[in-house]
Amino acid sequence: MPRYKLTIEYDGTPFIGWQIQAKGLSVQGLLAQAAGRFASETVAVHGAGRTDAGVHASGQVAHIELSRDWRPDTVRDAMNAHLRPHPIAVLSAEPAADDFHARFSARGRRYLYRIIARRPDLALERNRAWRVLRDLDTGAMAIAAQRLVGRHDFTTFRAIGCQAASPVKTLDRLDVERVAVEGPGVEIRVHAAARSFLHHQVRSMVGTLVKVGDGGWSPDDVSAALEARDRTRCGPMAPAAGLYLAEVTY
Amino acid sequence: MPRYKLTIEYDGTPFIGWQIQAKGLSVQGLLAQAAGRFASETVAVHGAGRTDAGVHASGQVAHIELSRDWRPDTVRDAMNAHLRPHPIAVLSAEPAADDFHARFSARGRRYLYRIIARRPDLALERNRAWRVLRDLDTGAMAIAAQRLVGRHDFTTFRAIGCQAASPVKTLDRLDVERVAVEGPGVEIRVHAAARSFLHHQVRSMVGTLVKVGDGGWSPDDVSAALEARDRTRCGPMAPAAGLYLAEVTY
Repeated sequence: MPRYKLTIEYDGTPFIGWQIQAKGLSVQGLLAQAAGRFASETVAVHGAGRTDAGVHASGQVAHIELSRDWRPDTVRDAMNAHLRPHPIAVLSAEPAADDFHARFSARGRRYLYRIIARRPDLALERNRAWRVLRDLDTGAMAIAAQRLVGRHDFTTFRAIGCQAASPVKTLDRLDVERVAVEGPGVEIRVHAAARSFLHHQVRSMVGTLVKVGDGGWSPDDVSAALEARDRTRCGPMAPAAGLYLAEVTY
Repeated sequence: MPRYKLTIEYDGTPFIGWQIQAKGLSVQGLLAQAAGRFASETVAVHGAGRTDAGVHASGQVAHIELSRDWRPDTVRDAMNAHLRPHPIAVLSAEPAADDFHARFSARGRRYLYRIIARRPDLALERNRAWRVLRDLDTGAMAIAAQRLVGRHDFTTFRAIGCQAASPVKTLDRLDVERVAVEGPGVEIRVHAAARSFLHHQVRSMVGTLVKVGDGGWSPDDVSAALEARDRTRCGPMAPAAGLYLAEVTY
């Protein structure tokens, strides 16, 4: 059966997350419904990563199989027509090899986390970033972030219910960037890249970095928390709304 | 009575527009309610510009009078607390002179119009930009835009119901900018500045520029439309969702 690689963008705000569940609107479920309606068959959607409720994607990847050999652009346009009015868009559909698997073939994932430091509530960026009240020491955050890069046991930064076989992961990149914004305040972006992440790992690392940025912790405290391999040593988890699955590489 | 200048950001999507009307949620009405609740008095909110339903602001300005001499930061924070969960934020509150009037003292207004040219629907930027299907000739748009800069009778680019005393306005700036985006497509921004604008003038000019950008019209056609002083000669009006009141200067 012809297989297609889909690159997908969504605003996670109205959804229960990527994964189909018994109740509620999921991104995976709406994609399966859209593909099924246009192709008039039952379609399974396999995603590269399960994003939680409220988490966004600018570059999620999934694959589907269809019984007919549709033109890839037709798949993209027809799925988008059936996805309206939900804030999910298929950015591209490409032919994929029979052994391509969105999750198991992935060689890397990149996430973006957006923090906006300003006193007023967010209006235009509501649900799109984490608003913190005061500016953060991004120099200290960058130093602390480097303590997490590399191959480590990330138990401290892993959700209690995480189902990964091992807590050992190799974090390839954790960069802290300051971005000027119109209006008051500053935006702070955290870029994280790895072959794969544990459940809640990015949000746990970002929450911990913010604890460094506001002066509560030193970079050494982050190293100690990592070495403790103890979930209770993690900083507060950053909210879902600031997180974007930006890219999956193969 | 102490007067305050407020700078305000809002996502226009859920509102009937700036102005209080008999029915529906207006930005002006919610600001008046928020100020009234915190100060326990009836407060009138005077805005610099009346934005239509769906139009956003990153720098709307308004003034209010309060009977007590509140600290400006208290006015900002207390109004924001009472504005939740609506996507409206008071970015700053400053003491203003007794003769300061948000509308009549304004010396200039700046608007931003955001166009995203790409085939897939917008998900993350839904309601925040005008999606056009094909890339636009921004060079031709920039040439056409310059035909509109200066002092002209803008009857062609004015809403039928516009209540301005005269259709003659001086357009100080109409710039077309290309901005790279993550993912497919390109963003095209139109920056417009003038002392004041006619009703629907920016959206009418942008719609006309897009007609040039997609090859339907030449810059000479825009000059001819301007000179005709005839509303029926205007291009299709650009949708509200792409427009932002970015700045009011005094």
